[in-house]
Amino acid sequence: MGRWEPGAGERLQRAALELFLEQGFAVTTVPQITARAGLTTRTFFRYFPDKREVLFAGEDEIPQRVADVMAEAPAEFDPMDVIDYSLTRIADRFFEGAFDYLRARQSVIDADEGLRERETSKFAVIAEAGREGFRRRGADELTSTLAAELAVTALRVAILRWLSAPRGRPLAEVVTETLSALRALATPSR
Amino acid sequence: MGRWEPGAGERLQRAALELFLEQGFAVTTVPQITARAGLTTRTFFRYFPDKREVLFAGEDEIPQRVADVMAEAPAEFDPMDVIDYSLTRIADRFFEGAFDYLRARQSVIDADEGLRERETSKFAVIAEAGREGFRRRGADELTSTLAAELAVTALRVAILRWLSAPRGRPLAEVVTETLSALRALATPSR
Repeated sequence: MGRWEPGAGERLQRAALELFLEQGFAVTTVPQITARAGLTTRTFFRYFPDKREVLFAGEDEIPQRVADVMAEAPAEFDPMDVIDYSLTRIADRFFEGAFDYLRARQSVIDADEGLRERETSKFAVIAEAGREGFRRRGADELTSTLAAELAVTALRVAILRWLSAPRGRPLAEVVTETLSALRALATPSR
Repeated sequence: MGRWEPGAGERLQRAALELFLEQGFAVTTVPQITARAGLTTRTFFRYFPDKREVLFAGEDEIPQRVADVMAEAPAEFDPMDVIDYSLTRIADRFFEGAFDYLRARQSVIDADEGLRERETSKFAVIAEAGREGFRRRGADELTSTLAAELAVTALRVAILRWLSAPRGRPLAEVVTETLSALRALATPSR
């Protein structure tokens, strides 16, 4: 082992992703993942309920993280400003620095219908957290729902643009650009 | 049989929906559905691949219907006007008059995670058709993607509001109201 010794959870994640990329998600087994990581299946199941969830680790923390960042946004911000504030901070805190991992993960997800559906339900968790955040900021039900859906649409589209371009631009920049395009689209031209 | 004799496909749809509502989606079997409809399982499988798809009949026609309505919208319309034009017409043509069926169907879908995921993938089909329609109208790739996602968000939110309120308002009216709220949200207040 080199100077950087990641924890078991991270080793399992890396081993799983390597195997999913090399041989496909469907045929990869938990024993293969643990063998690659040099760990036992018992350890695996302390971290993850199954191989699929390796790709969705940390989802439980999403509601709290979304709530935290939305609570930081200045009280006078309108919903679009809150979206911009929150998404750029989420981009910097949780995505920046993980480009290679996230690009590899995305290619595994794109190749499997069940994983794509699972990914969609992850974004539904983010949307629900966003809706709750807007409610707490005093927005009405319709505005909270639409603002949260807008935010998730912008985030999804920005992530896919970010991952499909050559590495280099910060995700936060792609998010802001995507939100500008959304604003331009929804602003009446007449 | 009364003066109204629906076709076999529609009889199977009604029988299936009744059973899903009475006893739940998971425990309902194809033979139960065909017995209720007075038809054979062989007939069932000529119409539907499985019991789930009974709730998603007609999905194959979505891309063509979306393409048709978007092609009707005047060439000078900006994307938000195209969305308003297309969604209100889709509401009038394919939803109005089916309120009771759609409300019952929605309650079955809401109660089952697999059906909710399947419903989400139906909206993804609509979004892809919308994206293609905007491309054909000459919009760039980002605008086409965002406009289609906005349209689907507005449609989903409007349908849920329409179905959860007492019957009476046309869906097209709820769609227009939802789009106004989206525009207001995305328009800079400064």
